[in-house]
Parts: sequence; structure tokens; C-alpha cells
Amino acid sequence: MLHHIILCSFLFLLCGQASECKSDIKAGNYLPNWDSLDKRPLPVWYDEAKVGIFIHWGVFSVPSFVSEWFWWYWQGTKQADCVDFMENNYPPSFQYADFAPEFTTEFFNPNDWADLFKTSGAEYVVLTSKHHEGFTNWPSANSWNWNSVDVGPHRNLVKELADAVRNRTSIHFGLYHSLYEWFNPLYLKDKADGFKTQEFVSSKTMPELYDIVNNYKPDVLWSDGDWEASAEYWNSTNFLAWLYNQSPVKDTVVTNDRWGQGVMCKHGGYFTCSDRYNPGKLQPRKWENAMTLDKKSWGYRRNAELSDYLTIEELLQTLATTVSCGGNLLVNIGPSKDGTIHPIFEERLKQMGEWLNVNGEAVYKSQPWKHQNDSLTPGVWYTTNQNKVYAFVFTWPTYGLLNLGSPVATSDASSVKLLGEESSLTWEPLKSAGVGIYLPVINPSTTNAKWLYVLQLTGFV
Amino acid sequence: MLHHIILCSFLFLLCGQASECKSDIKAGNYLPNWDSLDKRPLPVWYDEAKVGIFIHWGVFSVPSFVSEWFWWYWQGTKQADCVDFMENNYPPSFQYADFAPEFTTEFFNPNDWADLFKTSGAEYVVLTSKHHEGFTNWPSANSWNWNSVDVGPHRNLVKELADAVRNRTSIHFGLYHSLYEWFNPLYLKDKADGFKTQEFVSSKTMPELYDIVNNYKPDVLWSDGDWEASAEYWNSTNFLAWLYNQSPVKDTVVTNDRWGQGVMCKHGGYFTCSDRYNPGKLQPRKWENAMTLDKKSWGYRRNAELSDYLTIEELLQTLATTVSCGGNLLVNIGPSKDGTIHPIFEERLKQMGEWLNVNGEAVYKSQPWKHQNDSLTPGVWYTTNQNKVYAFVFTWPTYGLLNLGSPVATSDASSVKLLGEESSLTWEPLKSAGVGIYLPVINPSTTNAKWLYVLQLTGFV
Amino acid sequence: MLHHIILCSFLFLLCGQASECKSDIKAGNYLPNWDSLDKRPLPVWYDEAKVGIFIHWGVFSVPSFVSEWFWWYWQGTKQADCVDFMENNYPPSFQYADFAPEFTTEFFNPNDWADLFKTSGAEYVVLTSKHHEGFTNWPSANSWNWNSVDVGPHRNLVKELADAVRNRTSIHFGLYHSLYEWFNPLYLKDKADGFKTQEFVSSKTMPELYDIVNNYKPDVLWSDGDWEASAEYWNSTNFLAWLYNQSPVKDTVVTNDRWGQGVMCKHGGYFTCSDRYNPGKLQPRKWENAMTLDKKSWGYRRNAELSDYLTIEELLQTLATTVSCGGNLLVNIGPSKDGTIHPIFEERLKQMGEWLNVNGEAVYKSQPWKHQNDSLTPGVWYTTNQNKVYAFVFTWPTYGLLNLGSPVATSDASSVKLLGEESSLTWEPLKSAGVGIYLPVINPSTTNAKWLYVLQLTGFV
Amino acid sequence: MLHHIILCSFLFLLCGQASECKSDIKAGNYLPNWDSLDKRPLPVWYDEAKVGIFIHWGVFSVPSFVSEWFWWYWQGTKQADCVDFMENNYPPSFQYADFAPEFTTEFFNPNDWADLFKTSGAEYVVLTSKHHEGFTNWPSANSWNWNSVDVGPHRNLVKELADAVRNRTSIHFGLYHSLYEWFNPLYLKDKADGFKTQEFVSSKTMPELYDIVNNYKPDVLWSDGDWEASAEYWNSTNFLAWLYNQSPVKDTVVTNDRWGQGVMCKHGGYFTCSDRYNPGKLQPRKWENAMTLDKKSWGYRRNAELSDYLTIEELLQTLATTVSCGGNLLVNIGPSKDGTIHPIFEERLKQMGEWLNVNGEAVYKSQPWKHQNDSLTPGVWYTTNQNKVYAFVFTWPTYGLLNLGSPVATSDASSVKLLGEESSLTWEPLKSAGVGIYLPVINPSTTNAKWLYVLQLTGFV
Repeated sequence: MLHHIILCSFLFLLCGQASECKSDIKAGNYLPNWDSLDKRPLPVWYDEAKVGIFIHWGVFSVPSFVSEWFWWYWQGTKQADCVDFMENNYPPSFQYADFAPEFTTEFFNPNDWADLFKTSGAEYVVLTSKHHEGFTNWPSANSWNWNSVDVGPHRNLVKELADAVRNRTSIHFGLYHSLYEWFNPLYLKDKADGFKTQEFVSSKTMPELYDIVNNYKPDVLWSDGDWEASAEYWNSTNFLAWLYNQSPVKDTVVTNDRWGQGVMCKHGGYFTCSDRYNPGKLQPRKWENAMTLDKKSWGYRRNAELSDYLTIEELLQTLATTVSCGGNLLVNIGPSKDGTIHPIFEERLKQMGEWLNVNGEAVYKSQPWKHQNDSLTPGVWYTTNQNKVYAFVFTWPTYGLLNLGSPVATSDASSVKLLGEESSLTWEPLKSAGVGIYLPVINPSTTNAKWLYVLQLTGFV
Repeated sequence: MLHHIILCSFLFLLCGQASECKSDIKAGNYLPNWDSLDKRPLPVWYDEAKVGIFIHWGVFSVPSFVSEWFWWYWQGTKQADCVDFMENNYPPSFQYADFAPEFTTEFFNPNDWADLFKTSGAEYVVLTSKHHEGFTNWPSANSWNWNSVDVGPHRNLVKELADAVRNRTSIHFGLYHSLYEWFNPLYLKDKADGFKTQEFVSSKTMPELYDIVNNYKPDVLWSDGDWEASAEYWNSTNFLAWLYNQSPVKDTVVTNDRWGQGVMCKHGGYFTCSDRYNPGKLQPRKWENAMTLDKKSWGYRRNAELSDYLTIEELLQTLATTVSCGGNLLVNIGPSKDGTIHPIFEERLKQMGEWLNVNGEAVYKSQPWKHQNDSLTPGVWYTTNQNKVYAFVFTWPTYGLLNLGSPVATSDASSVKLLGEESSLTWEPLKSAGVGIYLPVINPSTTNAKWLYVLQLTGFV
Repeated sequence: MLHHIILCSFLFLLCGQASECKSDIKAGNYLPNWDSLDKRPLPVWYDEAKVGIFIHWGVFSVPSFVSEWFWWYWQGTKQADCVDFMENNYPPSFQYADFAPEFTTEFFNPNDWADLFKTSGAEYVVLTSKHHEGFTNWPSANSWNWNSVDVGPHRNLVKELADAVRNRTSIHFGLYHSLYEWFNPLYLKDKADGFKTQEFVSSKTMPELYDIVNNYKPDVLWSDGDWEASAEYWNSTNFLAWLYNQSPVKDTVVTNDRWGQGVMCKHGGYFTCSDRYNPGKLQPRKWENAMTLDKKSWGYRRNAELSDYLTIEELLQTLATTVSCGGNLLVNIGPSKDGTIHPIFEERLKQMGEWLNVNGEAVYKSQPWKHQNDSLTPGVWYTTNQNKVYAFVFTWPTYGLLNLGSPVATSDASSVKLLGEESSLTWEPLKSAGVGIYLPVINPSTTNAKWLYVLQLTGFV
Repeated sequence: MLHHIILCSFLFLLCGQASECKSDIKAGNYLPNWDSLDKRPLPVWYDEAKVGIFIHWGVFSVPSFVSEWFWWYWQGTKQADCVDFMENNYPPSFQYADFAPEFTTEFFNPNDWADLFKTSGAEYVVLTSKHHEGFTNWPSANSWNWNSVDVGPHRNLVKELADAVRNRTSIHFGLYHSLYEWFNPLYLKDKADGFKTQEFVSSKTMPELYDIVNNYKPDVLWSDGDWEASAEYWNSTNFLAWLYNQSPVKDTVVTNDRWGQGVMCKHGGYFTCSDRYNPGKLQPRKWENAMTLDKKSWGYRRNAELSDYLTIEELLQTLATTVSCGGNLLVNIGPSKDGTIHPIFEERLKQMGEWLNVNGEAVYKSQPWKHQNDSLTPGVWYTTNQNKVYAFVFTWPTYGLLNLGSPVATSDASSVKLLGEESSLTWEPLKSAGVGIYLPVINPSTTNAKWLYVLQLTGFV
């Protein structure tokens, strides 16, 4: 009994809600260990959604130079370009926190953002609630004067975007959260103690995680910044048990796998494994390819050039290979400190939406097919959906004849269509197995088939 | 004789170079009146160049809101959106000049800009040396502490760009110059005097015009801001006589027609007539269509959206109609206060360059054909170059058959080619005159014919 | 035993030093209750010192308007002058934290400050380590990005001043510390809970108090901001027991009486009772008159006028009445955000030092006499020191004859001297008891007796 | 006749007022040469006033470091302390003009200033309308965006102070004006031309001088910055002829002697000869001792210490020696960028006013006596006023007996009074000529005789 009291008071410190203490373990189905937590099935919406938008936004959007890791490169590893940038443009004593008042967001219109996300065809969106810099994009009681209401925007960015997304779209709203904070002195103290103390976790990480889940009810909780310490230090399994058993999003939330050293790609919700993870093979467990439109950075870089951004072809090829292998695609954009999403991001997202509008049946709610890519022609990937097979063709074949080695027609009545064009296509079985397909003559001014060509195969196995 | 002395001392004030006084009128071929000045033939490079880049950059790039006319809308006409913007984001006493220190240009790399312009296919570039705000992008002795060296960039933007353009490309370098300055008190004084005094002209406009011509040797002098006062007030004909007769660019410089109330579209060098002038008909005199990639502004707007920018198709159609009617196209971009050209601009310019790389023979050094657009099919425009006729086809015809009413084949050996594709096309004379052309089947992944299709007609009249 | 463990883990949270847990209660002499704590004798240095310098310095030194309570008046009580000041001078969204980067302290030279304090005659100095705004003038791990190293000065102000004072003077160094923080969300949460939770105390107040005591070893711990909650909430008695029993300053530290609602003027170390407390009567317990040179503010006010500052006469009269009644005088100055102590403060401090140089024997180590002020002549106050009685005379008497009712000569050999003048004075017993003293003719250009005249009486009772 | 036209048009350029041309030379009494100009008698108010306040205020009040010459020391002579200050506190590209937005003057209350000047006993005040930095404290049409209305204060400082002074006091209002501007490119051009061109003079100096005289009607025109070029270059004699003959202040204005290389101490109005000029001997021509309360600077220095300021004794001794030799005293203060006059300045000015209130009869409207200082006792200086002789005694004599060698009593009825004390003093003729005076016993708490003692001698020659 006394033991219970001790535990309670410990939990109290972590979750700040003594009332939840009594029923903490009993109520849900999951125990705070990986064996139990790993058994939770992912809520189905997530796999069906396939495409999400990732948003990296924070004080790093002010220097907006090199990447969202600017602070670390400047004062952690003292990378020359970052050090020089500060020397050339700021007074010697300028520190990172001095950037915060310039995070102005005067043009931030969350409804416009929500509209854009809808147009992009994405079905979920994940916003950095707090990155490794520790600055919270909501008014965290545990991050006084280092959050978006006390300094800089003077707005609750998390709430504003959550509300707009929910009021105008059916898009799921999620939050990114970094467990560690590079320069938080409480974290550094725990680290110096070999992570035997948990002062940082109990006074910052845990209260804030409970806070964002309770107040903003994210359907995705995208954990990060876990790698320096164990899941025990982070109190991850206890938190996840609460998240799965009792939190207000227990039935809808998905999480990833970044919950402690050695956990990634082994435990948790879906797997991310590494940034821009794209294995090219079918994976046993649901996974996500979190990748960036700006190849070099997650946060906005003021001096990024066109060549730093993916073309629409590159983006769609990444989408095809990802979905073919059972992954979701999380496409990252970096808004500016002004609160705008720059037109080059807008263009890519709208192009993706235009393409998904034509080819969505090959993506949403699809599943990996028995083959992920074609055995004969490179640059062809597959999904299946409701008895149809879909081939994602990266390159229009010379003379318009496409030979595929993997699909086999089950009868003469089997049919092939190019999504975005009306008529059925002529095909013939290949001698060696497979099928030869005669692509149509298309009118480049009016066709809806572009960038990446999707063939819908009916009656193929 | 005394008269001569008086004139001299007057000219001395204007040009600051007493030594030039004696020979002022005699040396050149042009007298300071429109009859004489209008007779000067345009240096040939200009008509051959066809495509230029216009750059609007200044203190207005700091608020970067509404347009480069922000100051005027805010404090001149007190337009609500501008007034509100200031009230919401700045201290009450903030004035326009307080923006200048934020014009930082830390990422300005003139060599990168020059490379981009080269890639765009443009053959000249025109930079705002000074817009209506009066801030000079070079260290003008007549604009102390209101120029880019004394405050803000602390760099000579004009010189840096001029040098980079000349060192790395064969592109002609030009300068935009506003005669009037909205709020310059000396100008306002002259204006209040009914333009009977010329204090502003003698102490600001003239010395600065001479300064930029002598020091930066622009091949284009793009005059603007003339409309409130007569050419006499502006001293335009005197200046132009010097420019044509004696200036260091007398043999290469071109100017436009904005040299005083009533002068535009009547006198001067080439005609601009109005912003985004695109008459759709052949013009008797060389003209230029100065237009913007951002449909709403010449200066960069931080909150511009994708839909505010021209698509590449829109840009190329504008180019085609302009060149077909004898005009040059001056494509405007607005760099940011940071010194960057945003990727959406970069993308359009590179797309234009990619297209010109394939279709340049229809543009550079071309001339208007006897027909500007087709008599039968809308959306087809013509140029001619070295005995060939070029048809700019906006839309790929249904079923690939294009009927043109204007070109007539001179023999069976006449031939037609789609630029960007190899093979000659099948054609047949139309009954009613004209020609029917069978466009090829194209491979959308590999073809070089895109956005706007150019047919090269050999042996057609 | 289990109880002990629980207590330990609680203490662990408070002091962050588990190793201290075991011996916590046993080692010292004081128990964590007022009965015990009130019995501790004040270290003798404090009463002997008599005069200290109080320094209010923080982010409030940036607006430097109205007082160090600016934030509260602006956003708490919404006082008109503060609200107007912000509206007139800052953008609408400007928040208090945005002031921090302007707390620059570029001219702060702690050695110069220490020299000035020495010259002033003060024997201790008390710096605000943290005022009600919560901004810490040292790099508190519990106040990340809201402390003087992370933002603003980028210097450890507490350490720099502590070191300078200790390296150059024999002055005791002390720290002011506010228990509450107006707008700290954790505090506001506890407050909304009726102070039944202590999240603020355990995660901010206690760790920081331990931190400053352990690291900067203050001889004075000047507590404040206690009044909204009980000493139990603040954990005051536990902390004081540690401070008195085990802290590194347990033998030298003095504290005041601001440790919880209802505690002031009742418990703790010396009494402060109220700001500018000056009771005019002998007090049973050691007390301190904390007062300001700027009559209206503790923090520097940029628009303070000469009439807002005490004259040297007013300052010395306050000193005399305070010391006569057994108090210490803590003279407050407000440095600027630049790091300077303005000349008007410097002048008063140097004048006080000049006066103490002459009259110090009546002040330092003195004790209240049997009479605090004279029974006959107003404006005369007394101390005693080593068998001498000292009369502080505010006003030079008309005709130079001063009649005192309280001191009685014990013999004809009793003598009287005016400090600052050489010769002994003529005196005669008064008929009615007391003594009449003939003040000397003084040379106003050379005399050391000025502002407030001190008579040294030998052989008087 | 033509000659007249030429002259007119030249004058037109200089004065901007063609209407004045015709009568320019004839109307007044003074010709534009020193012989004529030097003959103008000074308006009598000036000599009678004796004491003025000098105010140095401008953009230099923002760095507020080293002195109002900061810009020159930083970028002209590259003095180490200034260079280091910029390197330590500002971004590398920061230029002087970037300081201007911080010249905020939010606390500037011209009525409070006027009241203070009145209290100080001064009878004229001289404000820097423009210092060597070229920034004008009024909205000069010839200094666009480099004046106090366009940038920084956004107020017409000259007008506001002129109006306040005139509305509330009988104090004469004057303006300081620097002819040269260190870094004005037009000036530098003229200078590089060996001052053979006058572009700077005609487009900046002359229009601005006419502007301030016509619009703010100063009774003092305090010229400075003349030393690098001749009076011919500055057009000084022409301007002064206009000022004396036709300007709106022709009957009241006084000027000094800084009108061109070699002119100072030779020609013009009163003489200043050098900064802090105090010759200690009677001068043939009216002169002024322009000196500073901060011994090291005219502009406000944020890091000035108490020892940098004159004591009231030093100030009054300077006043006495100056007035005794026929000079006026112009006491300089440096307001802050906030618009405040710091208390240490306020204190000195009020002390001076308190003293003048008692001793003014020895100063205002006084004249030098036949002796300037005493032949016997050092530190005694004389004036005379209405048949009385006044002795300014710096130091109270030992034993109160003052022997003066210069004044001789004309009869036994001759009398001596110490100003600030009621009773007449005992005196006796000295054997050797002169007089011995027995100073009274004074009550240091109530006497009005302090800091510097003035004896009024009636019946002495």
C-alpha cells in the first residue's frame, strides 16, 4: 500500500494528474513493456492514408540557414559555415534565444495552410510541436518564455493549425515531438549523470507530452530525439501504455519507433528506421518514409535553390516506391518565419494533389502486391487495390510499347487502362510470361496522365 | 557670348562636368529635341536580343507587402491593407526610412544571379538603380544615407551586379531609373511650384543620371516615373542628346519612352506605352513588353501565392505574342531583401531557358512575319528568321492535326519540323489555302517539345 | 523506514542532492519550524555593518519605466501609463520576453561597481538574483532561455559581481531572491489550485535557491515575493533548516523575514516588515530599512528627475534614524540596462562614503543608546559606541548653540567634539538636565562637517 | 544687366528666393565683407544675458560613446576604442546611418526642458540643429531621410524646443549649425577639388542655413565646422550680409566667429576662439566660453562617471572668471537618445540657478571691472554693475578675514555685503591699499551663501 503511494506520487510528477493514478495499469489492454505495446494494431486509418505532410517550423526558421539543426552546428559542432554566418551577420554576443523575437509569423493563415494540405491529397499532417531546440509551438507551462505565445509569434501555433485542419478538412492532425533538447541544462545534467537522473524527463518531457496529447489530441505522435538515452530514461513504455490505454486519442493515435536508444526499427508503432527511409523491399511491419522536398533540410532555408528541391517526378517516384513496399510517405515542407509556405513548396504539393486526383485509386487504401517492382522493366512498381493491380511507370517506353514481366492476364477479358486517359489499351501476353502493353497516343495539352504513369490492370495476377 | 556662359553654368550644374560644356551641342549628331532624337536608330543588339530580365529590388523589398509601391499606398493614398499592416506589425512612429537597415542582402551572390540569367536565355538584364522611393542601389553622392552603401546592404548593388553580368556572360546590362521620387521634399517643392522650379532635377535627377551612365555604362536606360511633369521639367532632351552624342555608351545604349508627360508611346527610344503592354498587332516602332512573373507586383511579395505567378505556359505564350508583333519581352523578378531570387522565379527562368534552348531560332534575331497570328487556328503566332517561318502553337491539336490558314507551301519540297523533335512532318495543302500538318507521336518522357510547340516551316510564304 | 524513503525522494526533488538526504535533519542545530529557526542568533557581522547597497537589475531595466513592477502594471493591473507606453512605442504583439535581448550590459564593469561600493562606505551589497519577473541573473538550469547567459547580457551577472566584490573589498556579498514569479505558468497553476500543489516550488524555487546558495555563497539571502502563499507552500522552514545547518554559508548567512504569508515581521532572520520600514523607535529584534535613492522605484527609471532622488541630507537623516533605532540601512540603486550606475547614484553613494569616512565611528559597530532621539531638540538622534555617545544633528542651530535634553555629563572632564572638526567644544550643563553645546565657527570651504553633524560625547550618560 | 541676371541666378541657387534678389545688396547696412560685417554692434541682449545653455543632441546620442565625434573616430581616424566598441557590440556591416532608427526621444518633453533652462538662470539656449554628422534635427528638404522627422524621433526637434522655450520663458533661442559634414560625399568632392567647386555649399549648407533662419528665427546662430575651408568657399560673408540686413532676425541675432579658415578669433560676431576658451584676461571684443559639464564630451556619454562632470564649484568658478573678463558662459549638456536630460546635468543646472538667484546682480548686465582678478588674493575675480563692485571669492579665507588688494574704499560709508547673508560686514582699509573684510559666521544649514561667495562692494573704486 505504501508502495502504491510512492508509485502514485512518482506518477503524479510525471503526468500531473493524480486522479488517473488508481486505474493506471488496470484500465487498458497494454502493459508498459515492448512485448505488450508492440502488439497493439495500428489504427487502420493510418495505413489507408498513405500520404502525409510534415511541417518543420520553429525558431530555426529565423536564421533559416543550413537546416533546422543550425543551433547545434553553430554552437555544438561549430561547423564553419554556421560560425561564419553568425560572425558576418550578428553582434558577437548574439545567442540563439535572441532569434526568437524575429519568429514573427505575421502572414500565418492556418486556414490557407489547411486548404493547401487538402489540395495536396495528403490525409494527415504532422507539425513540430517542439524540435530539438526545445522551443514549444504551444504555450507550454514547462517552457516559460521559450514558447510561441510568450515570445516571437505570440500565437498558439499548434492549436491554430489543429483547429483549422479539423474545421475544414478530414485530414488527421499529428504532432512531432523531440524527446531531447540539445542545450537544455536539465537534459545536459541528466546526460552528465549517465542518464541515471531523470530531472529533465520529469520536469519537461513528460509534462509536455501529456500536455500536447490531452490538449491537442494528435492522431499521430511523431517522436524523435531519442537516440542518446534508453527508453527507460525517457519513461517511454509508461507513457505509451497511458497513450494506448487511457489518453483521449487511445483509439486513433499512431506513433512511430523513436522512443529510446536501440528502439528504432524494433519497437513502437510504425517504423521510421532512418530519415528518408525507403528500403525498396516489402517490410514486415508498417513503416513510413519521412522525407523532404528540400533535399538538404527539414526547416526552411532562405538560400535554398531550385536544384535543392525535388522535382515532381522525383517526388512521385518516391511515393510509388514507398507505397509499393507498404510504407506511408510523409512529405516535409519548411514554412518561413513570416508564416508563409513558399510557392515552390506549394507547387509541389499542388502537383502531387493533381496527380493523386487522377491516380489516387492506386495509392489510398492500396496494399502491396505480391511483386513490388517489375521483374522485366526497371522503374515499374506495383500496388493492388480491390482486385486490381496498379503499375507505376516512371518512364514512357520507347515507341510506346511497355513489356511487364510480373503481371499475368487471367483471361482474354483482362483489361488495362492508363489512369488519366479514357480508352482501354491493347495488350498481348508475352511469350516468356508477362504482358506487353501498347500505350496510347496522348495529347500533351489535354492529357491527365503525366509525370508518372499509372496502369490499372484488371484481371491480372 | 555671355549667353554661352550662362548656359554653361547651367549645364555645369546639370552635368557637373564643365569641360564638356564647350562641345556639348556640336560633337554628336543629335539635337536636344524630339525630332532629332527620335531619328536615332536603335542599336541592333536590342531587337535581336528579344528577351530581358527586369529586377525590382530596393527598400520596398523589406516590407515586401502589396508591391514596390508600398510606401505610396501606405502614406500617400492610405490604402487600408497597407495602413493595417503597419499598425499590426510596427511601432506607431515607425517610418519608411526605418526599414532600410533591414535591407540586408546577406545572401546576394551576383555571380549566381548572372549564371541564372544566362541559363534563362535572356540577353539583357535591367536592374532598378533607384525606384520611386529614391533609395539608390549605388553610393550616390546626391543621396547620402539613403543608398545601399550607407545603410542596409552596405554594398554597391549596381556595380556588383554589373560586374558579375559582364564578367561571366554576354548579357547586356541595363539600369532602370525613376525620374520622380514620391516623397522627396525637393521634388514636392518643385511640384508645388507647378514645376516652374527645377531644384529637384538639378540636385538629384540629373547628377544621378550622369553618375550611373558614366560609372556603370548601362546598355539599357529604362526611364520611369516621368508622368507628373513635362520633359522640359525633367531636362530630358538635353540629357538624351548627351547620352546619344557623348556618353560612354552612346553607341550601344537604348532607352525607352518614359521621359515626360505626353512623351510615352510617342518619343524616345523603344516604346513601352504601358506596363505589361502587349498590343497583339504589329507596331510601327520597336517596343517592349515589360511584365511580371508575379502578376500583382514588381517587387517581391512575401505573401505571394503560387496562383499569383505565371505558369511557364502563360509566360511562353506572352513571349510568343510579344515577339510576333515586334516586341521584346522584359520578364520581371523581385529578389528578396536577403539577396535571394526565390525558387519559383528560378524555376520559371530556367524553364524559359530550357525552352529557348530548343526553340531559340524562332526568337533570337527573328522578325515579325507578314502575319502575326494564324487566320484559321487561334493560338498560333508567327515569326520569321532567315527564310524560315516559325509557328508558335499554344495548344496541341485534337488528333494531332493542325490546320494553318496563313502559310502557303511554295513547292512539294517545302518541309515542316517540330522543334525539339527530329523527324520531318507530313503535311498537305489545305483546300482553302494554308496547310494541314500531322504532328508526331511524342514520348512525354523524352521529348524536348513542351509547353509551347514551335513549328519550323521551310519553303513557306 | 518506508516513510524515510518517501521523505528522501521528496527532498531529492527539492534539493537535487540525494547524498544530503541521510544527514539532513540530524547534522545541524535547527529544526524546520519557526520556534527553532527563530532562535538562531544573527551572525555578528551583519549588525556591525549597518550600511548595505541594494541593487535591482533585470529585464525591467530595459523598459526602465515606472518601476521594476512594469510587467505587472502593464499586463497584470493594466495601469494606463504602462499600457500607453507600450502602445506608443512598440509593435502591438510585443511581449515582455521580447525586451530581454535589449538587456545588453555592455558597459558593466563589476570591478568599477565594487570600487564604488567600497567608496560608499557600505559593508554589504545585495543583488537581485531574480526578481518577480523570474529572469535569473545567473545561468539557472531551471530557467532556460530566461536567464542572463542565454539571452540579453550573455554574462553571469551574479558571479561576476560576487567575484569582483570578494576580490577587491571586504564587503559581504548577498542575493535577493523572489519566491514568486508573477506570470510563471507553473506558479499560476499552483495558485489556481489554492496552493495545494507545489509544482512551481519543486521545479523552480527550491532548485534555484539551492543553486544560488551552493554556487555563489551569499552572506545575505534577501527573500521576497512570499506574500501570496504560506511558508508551508514555499517549503521555507525546510529550506532555512538546511541553510542554517548544512549550507556552505551556514555560519555567515543572514536572512530576512519574507518567507510566507504572515511570516514577515514575525519570523525568520532580521525583520524588514515593509519596504522603507523606518519605525522611529527601538525594535526588539534586529531589522533593516531597505529604501531607495529614487523615491519611486527600485529599478532604474529612464525618465526619473532630480527631484525623484533623495538629497544627501535626506539620505543621511534616514541613515541616522535607522541606526539609532537598531536598524541597518540598505540603500537601493538601479543600474541601467547598459550596465552603468548613473552619476546621480554615484554622487549620493560617494557623498555617503565621504560622510561615513568622517563620521563612521558613530555608525559602524555602534549600538542604540538608551535614548533614540533627543528629548529637547527635534532632529537629533543618538547611538553609542565604546563608551561614547554620538548625537546626529540634522540642523545647525541658530546662533550655533545646541541644547540637548538627553545626555548628562558625568564630570567636568566630559568632552564634546564635532566630528570633522579638530577642537573640543565648549559646553555647559543645562539647568533642566541635559547639556548646552557651543558649535564652532566653521570654514565652509575646508570643513569636513557637513550635511548632517555628528557630535561625539565623551563622559556623558 | 546680363551680369545682374547671372548673379541673380547664382543667388537664386544659394538662397532659393528669387524675390530677394533685386534688393539684396542695397537694403541693409552691411556689405558682404569682413570690414563691413565686423562693424555691426552686437545686439545688447547678448552681453546682458551672460549665461546660456548649449545642447548637443543627434544620432551621436545613440552610440553615446566617447563623444559626439564618435563617427569620425570610428571610421575617420579609426581610434581603437571606437573600433573595438563596434566590433564588440554590432554586426560587422553595421554603419553609422543604422543608428538613426534608435534615436527615439520617447521621453522628450520640450516644456520640461524649457522649465529646467529657466530654473538654471540661463538667458539663452543653443541647440544643435545639425552637427558634423549632417543629420538635421528639423525636416530639412536638403537632408531627406537623414533628418529627425524622416527617421528616428519622427519629430521636429528644433521647432518643438523653439516653441516651448518661447512660450514659457523669456530665454533667447539659438541654433548651432555645422558648416561641414565629415562624410557628406558632396563635401568630400568639393574638398577633393581643393574647394574650387561649391556643390556642397549650394545644395546643402546654404539652403539649410536660410531654412533654419527663416523658419526658426534663432537669436543665436552658432556656426562651427568651418576650419577646413575658406569663408569664400562657405559663402559666409554673403550669408551674413543677408542675415544682418534682411533676415527675420536681423535686429536680434548674434553669431560667432567660426565662418571659415582663419576667421575664428578675427571676424564675425562674438569670438569663441577655441572650445572652452577662457583667456583669464579682459578681451577687446565680446567673447564666449563654450564649455561642457561633462569634461570629455559635448554629446551624452552613457558611460560617463561622476568624476567626468564638473562640480558646482568648478562650474561657478568658470562662470566667474569668464564674466569677469567680459565673456559669456555657454554651458553644454548632452541629452540622451531617450529625450531625457540626466539628473546629474539637471542637478548642476539647478545648483547654478540657485546660486544665480542669490548672486545674479553680480552677473546679469554686469560689466568687467577695471581689475579682473585681485592683486593680492588669488581666486578672487571682479565685475561691476550699477556703481557696485562684485568680488567672486572662490575660497572662504582662513579665520574669515579676506584681504583684497584691488578695491579701494571711497569713504567710511563704503559698505560690504556677502550676497545671501543679510548683515553688512566689517571692513578696514589695508595699509598697502585695498581692504580687509571680516566675513560673517554663517549657519551652514540656512545660509544662501555657498559654493562661491560674492561680495557686493558699495563705494569702492
